[in-house]
Amino acid sequence: MEERILSLLENKEFGALKSVLSEINPADLVVYLEAIPKNKLLLVFRILPKELAAETFVEMDSDMQILLVTAFSDREIKDILSELFVDDAADIIEEMPASVANRILKQADAQTRRDINQILAYPEDSAGSIMTTEYFDLKKDMLVADAFSRIRKIGLDRETIYTCYVTDSRRKLLGVVTAKDLLLSRPDQTIEEIMEDNSIFVTTTDDRETVVQNFEKYDLLALPVVDRENRLVGIITVDDAIDVMQEEATEDIEKMAAMLPSDKTYLKTGVFETVKARIPWLLFLMLTATFTGWIISAFESKLAVQAVLIAFIPMIMNTGGNSGSQSSVTVIRAMSLGDIEFTDIIKVFFKEFRVSLICGLVLSVVNFVKIILLDNLIMNGEISYLVAFVVSLTILATVVFAKIVGCLLPIGAKKIGLDPTVMASPFITTLVDAVSLLIYFTIASSLLSL
Amino acid sequence: MEERILSLLENKEFGALKSVLSEINPADLVVYLEAIPKNKLLLVFRILPKELAAETFVEMDSDMQILLVTAFSDREIKDILSELFVDDAADIIEEMPASVANRILKQADAQTRRDINQILAYPEDSAGSIMTTEYFDLKKDMLVADAFSRIRKIGLDRETIYTCYVTDSRRKLLGVVTAKDLLLSRPDQTIEEIMEDNSIFVTTTDDRETVVQNFEKYDLLALPVVDRENRLVGIITVDDAIDVMQEEATEDIEKMAAMLPSDKTYLKTGVFETVKARIPWLLFLMLTATFTGWIISAFESKLAVQAVLIAFIPMIMNTGGNSGSQSSVTVIRAMSLGDIEFTDIIKVFFKEFRVSLICGLVLSVVNFVKIILLDNLIMNGEISYLVAFVVSLTILATVVFAKIVGCLLPIGAKKIGLDPTVMASPFITTLVDAVSLLIYFTIASSLLSL
Repeated sequence: MEERILSLLENKEFGALKSVLSEINPADLVVYLEAIPKNKLLLVFRILPKELAAETFVEMDSDMQILLVTAFSDREIKDILSELFVDDAADIIEEMPASVANRILKQADAQTRRDINQILAYPEDSAGSIMTTEYFDLKKDMLVADAFSRIRKIGLDRETIYTCYVTDSRRKLLGVVTAKDLLLSRPDQTIEEIMEDNSIFVTTTDDRETVVQNFEKYDLLALPVVDRENRLVGIITVDDAIDVMQEEATEDIEKMAAMLPSDKTYLKTGVFETVKARIPWLLFLMLTATFTGWIISAFESKLAVQAVLIAFIPMIMNTGGNSGSQSSVTVIRAMSLGDIEFTDIIKVFFKEFRVSLICGLVLSVVNFVKIILLDNLIMNGEISYLVAFVVSLTILATVVFAKIVGCLLPIGAKKIGLDPTVMASPFITTLVDAVSLLIYFTIASSLLSL
Repeated sequence: MEERILSLLENKEFGALKSVLSEINPADLVVYLEAIPKNKLLLVFRILPKELAAETFVEMDSDMQILLVTAFSDREIKDILSELFVDDAADIIEEMPASVANRILKQADAQTRRDINQILAYPEDSAGSIMTTEYFDLKKDMLVADAFSRIRKIGLDRETIYTCYVTDSRRKLLGVVTAKDLLLSRPDQTIEEIMEDNSIFVTTTDDRETVVQNFEKYDLLALPVVDRENRLVGIITVDDAIDVMQEEATEDIEKMAAMLPSDKTYLKTGVFETVKARIPWLLFLMLTATFTGWIISAFESKLAVQAVLIAFIPMIMNTGGNSGSQSSVTVIRAMSLGDIEFTDIIKVFFKEFRVSLICGLVLSVVNFVKIILLDNLIMNGEISYLVAFVVSLTILATVVFAKIVGCLLPIGAKKIGLDPTVMASPFITTLVDAVSLLIYFTIASSLLSL
């Protein structure tokens, strides 16, 4: 397909090109446009039918959008703006340099400009910043037949007509009617008769994590957003909720793996951007690992007496780190999904304590047997039962410590307003590393009388 | 609310109880039911209006479902089944012991039973296993007015009426019409006039990751599922896609943190189940860490000469491990989201190579300075410039190795049909641990002539 488009463009067969492009879905079309030489992009974009052009514009990355907007006439900007939903327009403008953003806003009519500015004013990651103001509203004394004529009149300009919101004269949210309810009712019924109370909504300042949890829990197609006075100001549609959901999961995964979150896809992120997202945590963790080095050198003279102890250091630290990140990651994910709250902290603590005891016991027994049977074979029998016991006891204590810290730190962090995800594996690993070494050397010093 | 329900139940005010419960959303109602004593659960459940009862039943965990089904009369099972969508029925039956499952299936009518069995027969994680057979279909010679009467007649039994599928007499998928299209068209237009070609579909055996990618890319409310002969056999609705999305992200996160995936929420998973999910990887990683122990003991005599080298082992291993999991986790997530495919392997390789060079250089320079200025202060100046250089060079080599392995292993694993997520941090960390020690000791041996 890509070659066909390029060859039609090459041969200037614009009529054929238009009919080929018009059949392509916006999300796929963007991929083809990326293959077109930059100096011909505007030409091709101008060929597209108006609606498809706007829908494709929304799907582009901001570099391509800026390239096009800079080349657009004021008339073209106006045309595209009139096809866009305001939440998409706000998303696009947010990524633009100020001068380009202002040029776009100047072409919007007063109402649209106000709506866009309103959305842009909400804090990032809030429900207000991802909502659209183009919802479909009804009054309770309307008839079902009136609702249908209203859909025919303004339905095209609304982001969804499948969930209709019933408001009073002061825009207070009274109830909700689905298009299915409308279709299955008699035309002479009133909206009040068929509407359902609406108890599910978010406020503009709610976190977008709350938005996602509502969609997941209640299987919604749209979620109403109200202001502090309980007036309906916008809605969030399910397609936007899905994007947020994937972004949040990706962000959590990136933070758990010691990276700063990025909002671009992998291949579109430049080398330096990638380095900038990765180097801060690598540096921080390398520098904090200095402590473990100091702990080891403080025990250096004792280690010289029992050199065999050194060989087990990596294994003890890894086992502690893995145990800790298992609990922290599980707890963080459960908090994101809304399965755990701060009030569950005691339950979580006891559960992790019991899990860590069992895991620790199994690991230390297996480790004891392994040292006696296997390591002794390789290391010419220089490991005594007592050393094996010291290592195994250290593993038990380390696993219990790591799992308790791993579950409590993220819950505590969230409670005091810190990001629980940053408390995940890498940070906890460093803490567990240092503590597990201290446990190891303390046990070894006393049992082996070093 | 919970107390109010319990006190109404206590005082046997069933009329009031019914009207209170009837106002509650199924997803919230389940939480209240969990607080009710088990011996009174059936009683309360029988009070609920039929439709709400069925919707609430779907939301329950399987323990509660089994408890109720065992106590149900055949008539009650039949009533609930008739209210359920077949994909929900299939989900429920899948979790039941065989005897209970058979009892439920016996109460289903022949068509429903066939549909349920069909869904159950598809491999887990396939599109077929999450679809429903209750889609809304139209023929191309119908009028828009006919479509509306069809919606009024059978719309209630369809999982969605917002996306209608146009099929021919052999059930081949011809096109798609949305409820919005219908509402905005004249009643005397034919479906053929207003339908759009449908190019977006999955086959029954496609992986559910593909399903999720389609929803995300094309902003769908429903996705058609066809069989090998391209006949429409079912649809997947967006609410089910959202559940799959969250499950897949949770599974990936669990696997990346060295756990076996679980399909229960954190607080509902028992201690032994949690141990069973965590201990296999802990054991495996503890045992493979044996190799790092052997490597260290093989160099023991050389380490005795330059004991200061020991102190840097944890820092080198951690830096390598963190660098590796940064790339592996990024690449795995990008593959899940469909941003990277096998054909991008060269691009990914070069990008990670450049990123690793820059990260490695920055880290080793900072490390060199830190050793000279800080560590030497703590360790009484016993670290020579040469040792600092050895450690820094090791860091550079380790970071480059870790990042390359971290990006290539998951892509390679997926290509040969292995689970890329299992290749993530824990597995790669173990590999990187061993290799980084070998690099360290090799560089140290030659530069320090040990």
